[in-house]
Amino acid sequence: MATAKRKNVYLENKPLAEAKELWSRALTECGFSGRIHSEIIAVDDARGRISAGAVFARRSSPSYNAAAMDGIAVHFTDLSQASEAAPTTLSPEQFSPVNTGNAIKESYNAVVMIEDVHLRTDGQAEVTAPATPWQHIRTIGEDIVATELIIPEGQVIRPIDLGAMLAAGVTEIEVIRPPQIKIIPTGTELIQPHENPQAGQIIEFNTRILGGYLEEWGATVQRNLPVQDDPKKLREALLAAIAEHDMVIINAGASAGTKDFTSSVIAELGTLIVHGVAIKPGKPVMLGIIKGTPVVGLPGYPISALLTMRVFVREMVAAFLNQATPQPDYIYATMSRPVHSTMGVDQIVRITLGRVGDKLMATPSGKGAGAVMSFARADGLLSLPTGSEGVGAGEPVPIELLRPQTEVDSTLVCIGSHDNILDLMANQIHATGNTTRISSAHVGSMGGIMAIRRGESHFGGCHLLDEETGEYNIPFIKRFLRDIPLELINLCYRQQGLMVAKGNPYGITSFQDLVDKNLLFINRQNGAGTRLLTDKILREQNISPEDLSGYEREEYTHMSVAAAVANGSVQAGMGIRAAAEALELDFISVAEERYDLILPTAFANDPKIITLLEMIRGSEKFHHSILALGGYNLRDCGRVFYRQ
Amino acid sequence: MATAKRKNVYLENKPLAEAKELWSRALTECGFSGRIHSEIIAVDDARGRISAGAVFARRSSPSYNAAAMDGIAVHFTDLSQASEAAPTTLSPEQFSPVNTGNAIKESYNAVVMIEDVHLRTDGQAEVTAPATPWQHIRTIGEDIVATELIIPEGQVIRPIDLGAMLAAGVTEIEVIRPPQIKIIPTGTELIQPHENPQAGQIIEFNTRILGGYLEEWGATVQRNLPVQDDPKKLREALLAAIAEHDMVIINAGASAGTKDFTSSVIAELGTLIVHGVAIKPGKPVMLGIIKGTPVVGLPGYPISALLTMRVFVREMVAAFLNQATPQPDYIYATMSRPVHSTMGVDQIVRITLGRVGDKLMATPSGKGAGAVMSFARADGLLSLPTGSEGVGAGEPVPIELLRPQTEVDSTLVCIGSHDNILDLMANQIHATGNTTRISSAHVGSMGGIMAIRRGESHFGGCHLLDEETGEYNIPFIKRFLRDIPLELINLCYRQQGLMVAKGNPYGITSFQDLVDKNLLFINRQNGAGTRLLTDKILREQNISPEDLSGYEREEYTHMSVAAAVANGSVQAGMGIRAAAEALELDFISVAEERYDLILPTAFANDPKIITLLEMIRGSEKFHHSILALGGYNLRDCGRVFYRQ
Repeated sequence: MATAKRKNVYLENKPLAEAKELWSRALTECGFSGRIHSEIIAVDDARGRISAGAVFARRSSPSYNAAAMDGIAVHFTDLSQASEAAPTTLSPEQFSPVNTGNAIKESYNAVVMIEDVHLRTDGQAEVTAPATPWQHIRTIGEDIVATELIIPEGQVIRPIDLGAMLAAGVTEIEVIRPPQIKIIPTGTELIQPHENPQAGQIIEFNTRILGGYLEEWGATVQRNLPVQDDPKKLREALLAAIAEHDMVIINAGASAGTKDFTSSVIAELGTLIVHGVAIKPGKPVMLGIIKGTPVVGLPGYPISALLTMRVFVREMVAAFLNQATPQPDYIYATMSRPVHSTMGVDQIVRITLGRVGDKLMATPSGKGAGAVMSFARADGLLSLPTGSEGVGAGEPVPIELLRPQTEVDSTLVCIGSHDNILDLMANQIHATGNTTRISSAHVGSMGGIMAIRRGESHFGGCHLLDEETGEYNIPFIKRFLRDIPLELINLCYRQQGLMVAKGNPYGITSFQDLVDKNLLFINRQNGAGTRLLTDKILREQNISPEDLSGYEREEYTHMSVAAAVANGSVQAGMGIRAAAEALELDFISVAEERYDLILPTAFANDPKIITLLEMIRGSEKFHHSILALGGYNLRDCGRVFYRQ
Repeated sequence: MATAKRKNVYLENKPLAEAKELWSRALTECGFSGRIHSEIIAVDDARGRISAGAVFARRSSPSYNAAAMDGIAVHFTDLSQASEAAPTTLSPEQFSPVNTGNAIKESYNAVVMIEDVHLRTDGQAEVTAPATPWQHIRTIGEDIVATELIIPEGQVIRPIDLGAMLAAGVTEIEVIRPPQIKIIPTGTELIQPHENPQAGQIIEFNTRILGGYLEEWGATVQRNLPVQDDPKKLREALLAAIAEHDMVIINAGASAGTKDFTSSVIAELGTLIVHGVAIKPGKPVMLGIIKGTPVVGLPGYPISALLTMRVFVREMVAAFLNQATPQPDYIYATMSRPVHSTMGVDQIVRITLGRVGDKLMATPSGKGAGAVMSFARADGLLSLPTGSEGVGAGEPVPIELLRPQTEVDSTLVCIGSHDNILDLMANQIHATGNTTRISSAHVGSMGGIMAIRRGESHFGGCHLLDEETGEYNIPFIKRFLRDIPLELINLCYRQQGLMVAKGNPYGITSFQDLVDKNLLFINRQNGAGTRLLTDKILREQNISPEDLSGYEREEYTHMSVAAAVANGSVQAGMGIRAAAEALELDFISVAEERYDLILPTAFANDPKIITLLEMIRGSEKFHHSILALGGYNLRDCGRVFYRQ
């Protein structure tokens, strides 16, 4: 009950630069950075490690004069007159057969290759070419001379370096030791992945995300079991962790909630240097030192935790490894929508990218910091430093790449109405070594048409019924995309209807039932084809939207509508049969509608589009998997309904 | 004796494209490629692995309606009149305190954040703001909806994907199994790294290089112990290997030497598909199938083996992993020297790169395929396909990058006379997180001056004594670099002299001794300062070069001259004391000479040059390590002797 009183009032809002400065100083003082942490290991285990000092050759290579060809070793003066026309004959004492790599005896100083030698049965050799001193001999030290620098300090050891060291007689190497990091997840609500979450319980996956990136940066990671919300237990876990690790990460307990005492435990055991930074997401980050060991408290939301860790911990790992912090790859892109900045805060925005024609478009993700998939689907990050005024649509902005640029370039951007077939498409086009990816944004049919008009997408799904003509899509194209050469290609016919709970406990048969029984409905957003269909039916049945409870609550995809029905927060929603079947809902069919793809002709020769159309028109596997979803008819799949 | 007869006469010279075509067909036929090889593993172990099929969500996330803020859960209609001026008071039944992540009970449908709530001691709550339906609530499926596509087939699993899968209730995943590759080194001459090589023995390091790259490409590698040159033993090793691996690599026994029977063993146990390809280096490669398992025989020289493996095996590993072969990064560079092509052969040339001013210069390595360090130092590869006419100096060519471009861009190119200090420099400038690298080419003082004239280097070491004036370097600069603004900065004074075997067994005191006792000398190349010094001394002492045995044999560095003396192939060579001391040779001092660096002013503001000069002028650690080499005097180190 005393939530407001018990909350931690010490949460600051320190500017990012100041927080970093304080933290960097503390890390140097406690010896975490600015110091070489090394260990000696066998060269055989050194691939990918970082040299802690220079490595010099102990031996020359080759360590003896060696034949560089198969042939015979000779003294070059013996062959001064040899030629094709007048071969020189050598007695068995004057030569010695050698294979590549064989040692050359001191009495010889050249090798003649086998092609220029005829070995006679009497043991003598006829040679048809003269020799120059040391020809076809790899002399001692030709590759490596003892004491030569093989590997400088601070170099990542590559496989070729293993060979160079071994050739140079070096079998052990002093390398930088990776930082040992312990991650402690906190929260009584946390359960392990194999358990089935009840309401209020959360699967503990943050440490897997955080640990995975830490390992990619070069750290060694140990994950603690979740620690319950109990200061005593957190204190114990923390003391045990700092005793055996170079650094500890606590996730979470860093915000100002009732049970957030991470900061007070850090302050009690050591020094809390920063608590609260003006960044978004990630504000309630904590930075402290306990008995010389850095302790970082990250916020609870996975994306907040990850982005904060990138801001503060990535350079800690690099410093421990005596490496410069890796510079991210940036690329300039054009914003497709504006992003508003938050006063006095450093902001990081997830971005999806798509190269459409010659424009690289950047679209900000609208999801919250709890949305893991929004980061999984993101192609890059946009930083809005404090004091920035945000960015407008059409503005060029630098985007930090989260994927290689080649991957971004091989992405087809699909913006428009959602259908489960798009998921199948995205999967199958990516399979079997094909590098083409599909990135889908689900903004409804009209949103898709507008994206094509702005040149931001390669194609879009559309199912807009024109009430006047009874025609699908074409009237809308003529109205909004008049000047753009394009093709309208059918993907499928699909059933639309009311999705209701399994077994239809309320006995719903129509929209009128929802009104009569005062049941809760959930709608789709404006511009969605399904919304138009809903409105048309309501008009036809003389139902006023005000009478339909929940009409004002909007979702953006069939699946999120289905999920709302499945979890009981609403009693019905309008959507496609495939979505209902996926979540095992009952389905009351209302109409069959046509679902087409709009493809601007400008991209018709793009190999990615060609691959897509081949799949739509030719892949049996693709058609089978569509039909397996239920509620689809493919009688016109791939057919061009309109061209302009 | 019967070398010529016993050699394997079946070595072909198949064009690369044809060999690849034959091999690709054989790999598909035997089931190595074109097939999914998968295994099921825990999601916790899946980072970096490749999905073998699409992964769909089993559960929605969040799986319940959850508070997105700390505050109180309410029914939004209860607060329709709430405002700052007129707070609404809620009874304990009308609200419930929640922390972020808590489940929202069915009777509530909004969360008010704690900042807008005053919790009274009587248990009631005063709220100063109205609420909208579902505000600050993460609804079921907001992040992930059950059945949604989480990961498409063929995707490399990133840490964020682990989180997405676990959040979606997926705890196991079917991933592509890496190919299990066995590498069998062959050769009676091979010894293990910890052993001390005798003449004719070679340290077995090829499998470490090859295995390391295979692992980086995604394979699992097992290294066999070296197999002696005995067909029976090779047969046994090969049969054991194919029984338990997806692929076997034999190194070497692939050329036409006396003991090379790898090809006949493959042909006997299975099918030898290709033996000999028109590529350089790498011609004697073998490609065969034994009982359905691909067997690749690579040539013995490490660089030949590595480059051949890149040509044939890299795409095999990718195909097994169901991935497209990674496309290398190319960059255009200007050739600093010509490369001549070999008729009818696909040729691969090692390249060092350096960005000097706005020109990226590519310099071919002159070393043979046995030279590991030449590959360790290489920045890229130039491919000359069969039929190409080679490339001329100044020609722009595409170079396959072996290092990230940022690393190439942060490289200082040093071309000129060699001194051991340059190794120390290269090491220390790279240490402590500094990304600056030094790439040195040792072409002598005059070669360095010419490189500066052509704009190919950032700086160069120079020790040219003008006989007429007795002055170092400046007369040469005035003659050859007249129009180029530059500074001449002293690095050191150093002792030059005769390097002779330890204990000076021949009692050498001067050049005249070498002539009188008919001992073998080794010289430096034309244009080397040490060569000029040698010639000056010979003239002063009236010794004709013809009388000095070995005068015509040239080495390019002090260290290689020292190595020749150390291994007894010559009795004396001219060089610096540091080189003699490194190889524990005796040293007869002949002169102290000045060693300067020439730095064109054009690069004076380059931060890399600034770092270099700071080190030369300010680093005590650097000076100490120079003096530890022996034979150096730093009285003018860093002083500018000339400026133009």
